[in-house]
Amino acid sequence: MQLPLNIAAHGSESLQQQITQQIRSLIHDGRLAPGARMPATRELASDLGVSRNTVIAAFQRLVAEGCLESREPVGTFVAQRIIIDRPAPGLAHPAAAVRHDTGAHRPQPRLRLPQHWQAHHVARPHAGQVALDFWVGRPDARLFPLRTWSMLLTRALHSQAHQLCEYGDPQGLLALREAIVSHVGATRGIATDAGRVLITNGIQEGLSLLAQLLIAPGVEVAVEDPCYMGASRVFAAHGAVLAGVPVDEQGMRTQALPRRAALAYVTPSHQYPLGGTLPLTRRRALLAWARECGAYVLEDDYDSDFFYDRAPLLALKSLDEHDQVVYLGTFSKTLGAGLRIGYMVLPRSLCQAAVNAKVMLNNSQSWLEQAALAAFMAEGGYEQHVRRLRRLYAARRDHLRTALAQWLPHWQVQGAGSGMHLVASVPADAAPVHEMERAAHAQGVGIYGVERGNGQLLDVAPEHPWRRIVLLGYASLDEPQISDALLRLRQALA
Amino acid sequence: MQLPLNIAAHGSESLQQQITQQIRSLIHDGRLAPGARMPATRELASDLGVSRNTVIAAFQRLVAEGCLESREPVGTFVAQRIIIDRPAPGLAHPAAAVRHDTGAHRPQPRLRLPQHWQAHHVARPHAGQVALDFWVGRPDARLFPLRTWSMLLTRALHSQAHQLCEYGDPQGLLALREAIVSHVGATRGIATDAGRVLITNGIQEGLSLLAQLLIAPGVEVAVEDPCYMGASRVFAAHGAVLAGVPVDEQGMRTQALPRRAALAYVTPSHQYPLGGTLPLTRRRALLAWARECGAYVLEDDYDSDFFYDRAPLLALKSLDEHDQVVYLGTFSKTLGAGLRIGYMVLPRSLCQAAVNAKVMLNNSQSWLEQAALAAFMAEGGYEQHVRRLRRLYAARRDHLRTALAQWLPHWQVQGAGSGMHLVASVPADAAPVHEMERAAHAQGVGIYGVERGNGQLLDVAPEHPWRRIVLLGYASLDEPQISDALLRLRQALA
Repeated sequence: MQLPLNIAAHGSESLQQQITQQIRSLIHDGRLAPGARMPATRELASDLGVSRNTVIAAFQRLVAEGCLESREPVGTFVAQRIIIDRPAPGLAHPAAAVRHDTGAHRPQPRLRLPQHWQAHHVARPHAGQVALDFWVGRPDARLFPLRTWSMLLTRALHSQAHQLCEYGDPQGLLALREAIVSHVGATRGIATDAGRVLITNGIQEGLSLLAQLLIAPGVEVAVEDPCYMGASRVFAAHGAVLAGVPVDEQGMRTQALPRRAALAYVTPSHQYPLGGTLPLTRRRALLAWARECGAYVLEDDYDSDFFYDRAPLLALKSLDEHDQVVYLGTFSKTLGAGLRIGYMVLPRSLCQAAVNAKVMLNNSQSWLEQAALAAFMAEGGYEQHVRRLRRLYAARRDHLRTALAQWLPHWQVQGAGSGMHLVASVPADAAPVHEMERAAHAQGVGIYGVERGNGQLLDVAPEHPWRRIVLLGYASLDEPQISDALLRLRQALA
Repeated sequence: MQLPLNIAAHGSESLQQQITQQIRSLIHDGRLAPGARMPATRELASDLGVSRNTVIAAFQRLVAEGCLESREPVGTFVAQRIIIDRPAPGLAHPAAAVRHDTGAHRPQPRLRLPQHWQAHHVARPHAGQVALDFWVGRPDARLFPLRTWSMLLTRALHSQAHQLCEYGDPQGLLALREAIVSHVGATRGIATDAGRVLITNGIQEGLSLLAQLLIAPGVEVAVEDPCYMGASRVFAAHGAVLAGVPVDEQGMRTQALPRRAALAYVTPSHQYPLGGTLPLTRRRALLAWARECGAYVLEDDYDSDFFYDRAPLLALKSLDEHDQVVYLGTFSKTLGAGLRIGYMVLPRSLCQAAVNAKVMLNNSQSWLEQAALAAFMAEGGYEQHVRRLRRLYAARRDHLRTALAQWLPHWQVQGAGSGMHLVASVPADAAPVHEMERAAHAQGVGIYGVERGNGQLLDVAPEHPWRRIVLLGYASLDEPQISDALLRLRQALA
């Protein structure tokens, strides 16, 4: 297959940009169909008279956008799940096209989702396939406080069953918001009140509401590079231009923040996916930047209940003198994602708009689990549960670190100071990470590179160091399982 | 206050349009502040040299859009809750403005919500204030199958607790989708499969997802006039141009459907708010229109489990040969809105896009109540519960009709054939409906005109017949309560 590309050697845009844009257009127009196989990079480079690295970089950018899919070692393909912007007539209604293909039917309504609106995948990709899964951000179901929870549900149900039949407060159950105010005050240093808290269906819904409020097409959003894909894809789907800010072992390199961004999205407690904790100097720099640019900062504090080696750094929001930070928290990591309860602590300027947006979106959260959680927190059970998890997860992390040092001594560990996963940099002379993923899978072990683990790397450099890391979520595996997994992993990689 | 309006007597736009647009601009620009009192219509009409009715009609349009609020008898005001499109510097961050008012700070990010993105209110406005509330669409909490539900929750929790700790299927729990397929097949005549069903946080979330997929700014959406405000406001917030199609006692007058619309939103089983059931001829006309225009039809079947006097008309979706109808259902009316479980049956062309949008939005629904509901349906308890409700609600409806005929014989009843509310047209010489609402409230009875009851009337004619109707939701009141309410109502209106 020869692609109809037209590359100008001395154009105002780089060769790589021209290739990227033209292929993207071919896909958008439907001239390259979903699932179509792309030419080999070597061939295309030779056709166009450019270096192969230029083509590789363009392909990688398109893979990152979700336009292409790499299925190594077979080749690169146009993504299957692309949502088309302007369906060909009849495509939106296949039945219609078949029945009345001679008819005078009008153009179908177009789907508005842009090309790159592909979904991330938070559910375990290998559930039921691998015995020992280092999938990231997953708590241990064996530690769920089942008996207490069951009692709390029953109690709420029998004391206030009429709540099942009413629409709840769109901002969230007041008792839960009050419990959250106490919790974030005591553990994260955030002074707020229940009027500033909005209960959401997980942090993901908080991000969606904020994107709806704050992102118009073309708005620049600063994100960590790599960042959490569940966030970056929501921003992109609302038309944001993503400006990647490089990340090192301490999180976002704040001196590289772009001046034009209207928003910055950060994970200061435990950078996703690389695991760094943003130091105080960078936090202050980030807030000063936001102040100067008139930007909001979205602080995603997804697993901040777990600091192991030192007192937890308080939330960025606790330093937020100018009310520019939206704090996003969740119970998915301490209780479970199946509850779908998260929350935001909002700047005063966004409260009313966010609550209105929540009403428009889905009226409110379901009542019962909010009520159980509010009681669990108010009665002290939640803090006790988190303390227990922290102790157990610290032991698992220590065990994993020791096992890695023993069995895979060339892997360098970072990001282990907090959270529920650590990051291992694999040596440059080892196999590529996607091959390791496959080999581990064959031995019943789930490990994940940045992209398989819902990290999005915007920098397309093929030899980028963050392409050589493995994410190891240890919270759901006990010590014997971790030992077993490491032994199998070592065999798989031998 | 004199408004800076500039009205041309012979312009291309009507006087009313000019007034509406110019006032809207003054509000958008912030020249008319939230909460500001508008001049009296008589005064303004005299200033502008136009008839008072023209000014009244312009004000009513702006009230319908959410730009103005009528607080009779005090006057008309700029809406308090308006969300401004372009905040004045410092407004988005009040703290910043105060602290650094000399500073070189940049423009704040703008909020994207348009002016008219005001929230509807599904929670009872007078909860705790009126003893006898005819609030619409509210089931009787005393009839909730509490013991069974509690047992089902406990069973699900103890047999599959690990589901609490995982992200669920974004499309919804398979067992629930399968139960829904059986339910809509048996009761609504819809032939589908679990792959076409998406579980949502109520119908409202389904509408939001569809608006996100299908509505770009300027897209024309045909809605019933009056229609359900929770729908029309979501469409408007996504930039839709609403084309109102008049409604009579049989629902939407389909011969008035506009040719340019890309979508039609309808409530065929029990028109919201007027209560008509769309006859088969109009259903066929609607589908033929959709076929010719290449439009999708959104069928909101919010209370279709309750047909009383004849076999239920099957869903519009059951006639959908060309796969153009999205069917939206809910458990809010048969179990309770506090569960937040609804669903869509999607055309094949929208399935993948809708599931992707759900992932982006909030990953998935919470697990536990989905599991309990799936079991309740699979084991036959749900159908039994609905049959019981249908019998009891029919008796309440009959009782209300009889009581109305006896105590308020001049009120004409319509829309009583199905659903959970009926509609009474009050005589033209009676007090205005908003005064009746207040008088009833003073006697401990909640009754609702079209707009207080979340109906949106797009036609601004001040003497429109649908401004003289009262919505009476009877499902949550038993017969003695209905008698008591009618006696009080009669006293209030005497």
